Amino acid sequence: MVRQKRAERTRRSLLRAGAEVIAARGCEKASLSEILQRAGVTKGALYFHFPSKDALVRAVLEERAAVVPPDSGQPYAQDSIDFTHRAAHAGERDPLLRAETRMAAESLSGKDCPAAYREWSATFQGMLRRSAKAGETLPGTDPAESADTLAAAYLGTRLFWHATGQRPELTEMLARLWRHLLPGLVLPATLHRLDPHGGDVSVEAGSTDESSREPSETR
Amino acid sequence: MVRQKRAERTRRSLLRAGAEVIAARGCEKASLSEILQRAGVTKGALYFHFPSKDALVRAVLEERAAVVPPDSGQPYAQDSIDFTHRAAHAGERDPLLRAETRMAAESLSGKDCPAAYREWSATFQGMLRRSAKAGETLPGTDPAESADTLAAAYLGTRLFWHATGQRPELTEMLARLWRHLLPGLVLPATLHRLDPHGGDVSVEAGSTDESSREPSETR
Repeated sequence: MVRQKRAERTRRSLLRAGAEVIAARGCEKASLSEILQRAGVTKGALYFHFPSKDALVRAVLEERAAVVPPDSGQPYAQDSIDFTHRAAHAGERDPLLRAETRMAAESLSGKDCPAAYREWSATFQGMLRRSAKAGETLPGTDPAESADTLAAAYLGTRLFWHATGQRPELTEMLARLWRHLLPGLVLPATLHRLDPHGGDVSVEAGSTDESSREPSETR
Repeated sequence: MVRQKRAERTRRSLLRAGAEVIAARGCEKASLSEILQRAGVTKGALYFHFPSKDALVRAVLEERAAVVPPDSGQPYAQDSIDFTHRAAHAGERDPLLRAETRMAAESLSGKDCPAAYREWSATFQGMLRRSAKAGETLPGTDPAESADTLAAAYLGTRLFWHATGQRPELTEMLARLWRHLLPGLVLPATLHRLDPHGGDVSVEAGSTDESSREPSETR
C-alpha cells in the first residue's frame, strides 16, 4: 500500500516535470534527462511508469483531458464556456496547460509531437452531447462536428493571443469567440441565459501546486 | 527599364524561394544560404532587396496579405468566406500560404518568427468593414474585434486540419466553421444568402507557378 502510494507520487512528479520541460522547451527539444533531473527520479523509475518519451508526452496530454468539467446544472452549454475560461485562467500557472499550448503551436514542425486538438475535441464533444440531450442546441447540430470546430477555434484563439502580444486579456478574446459561436450552436432560448465571459470561473486548486520552479527558458 | 524588370524578377525569385524554404523547414531553421541557392541569386542581390532574413520573412507574409479578395458584389460577407476557401485550395500548392501556415504553427516556439495572425486579421477587417457598411452585419458588430476572432478561428482550423490527419477535407472544416460563426456575425436576411462552402472558389493562377520543385523535407 505504501509502495503503491510512492509509485503514484513518482508518476505525478514525472508528469509534472514532463509538462514543465515541454512548456519551456517544446516537445521536440524536451529531453528525458532534464525531466528526470527536475522530477528527482531515476531512469529505472521512469521506465517503470512510461516505456518511452512518447508515452510520457501522451500521458501529459491525457492528464489534462481527464480534468472533467463540473456539472453545474442547466444550461449545460455554460459548462463549455466556463471550462475554456477556467483553462485560460489556469493556463499561465498550470504546466499541463502550458505544455498543451506549446504542443499545439508545434503541431506542424515538431516531429512525433502530438497536439492537444483531439483531446480538446473529445472534451467538447462530451459537453455538447449533454447540451444536445437537454435540448439546448440548434436542430441538426452534430456534437462531433461542432466539437472539432470549437477545439480548432479555441486553440487558435489561445495561439493568436500568445502570438500577438497577449492583448486584450485572453478571457476577453474567449468571450468574443463565444459571442460569435453561440448563435450558431444553441437555440435563442438558451442563448440569452449564457454568459460568454464565463459564469463561474473561480479556479479550483489544480492537480499541481503553484510553488513550482520554472525552467529558465519560458518565453 | 530592363534593369528594373530584372530587379523585380530577382525580388520575386527571392520571395518564392524564401516561402518554399520556410514552408519546408520552418522559419527558424530556414537558412539564407538555402534560399539563395534555390533562387539562384547572389548574396549581394539578396541584400539589395532585403537587409536581413527578418525583412525577407516579413515580406513573404506581406506578399500573401497583399492578395486582395475580389469584390464580387453583395453580399460582401460571401467574399470573406470565399477568400478562406480560395486560400485553402491554393494552400497546398502555393508556397506563400504553406509558409504562412508553418509560421502560425511556429508562433510560440520560433524565436523572432512572426506569425500571420495580424495579416489575416487585417484582411478580414477590410472585408468586414464593407459588410458592416452594406448593413449585412449584426448591430453592434465591431469589425476589428470580429476580424481578430475570425483570424484566430480560421488559422486554428488550418492547424487543426494539419495536425489531425487532414480529414475531413479542409473545405468541409471551413464550411463548418462558417456555419458556426455566421449567425453570430451577420443579420438573418444576409445569412440565408450565404454559402458557407464558398460561392466562387475557382482558384485563379496565383502569384507563383505550379512547376515548383519542392524541398525534400516537406512533411
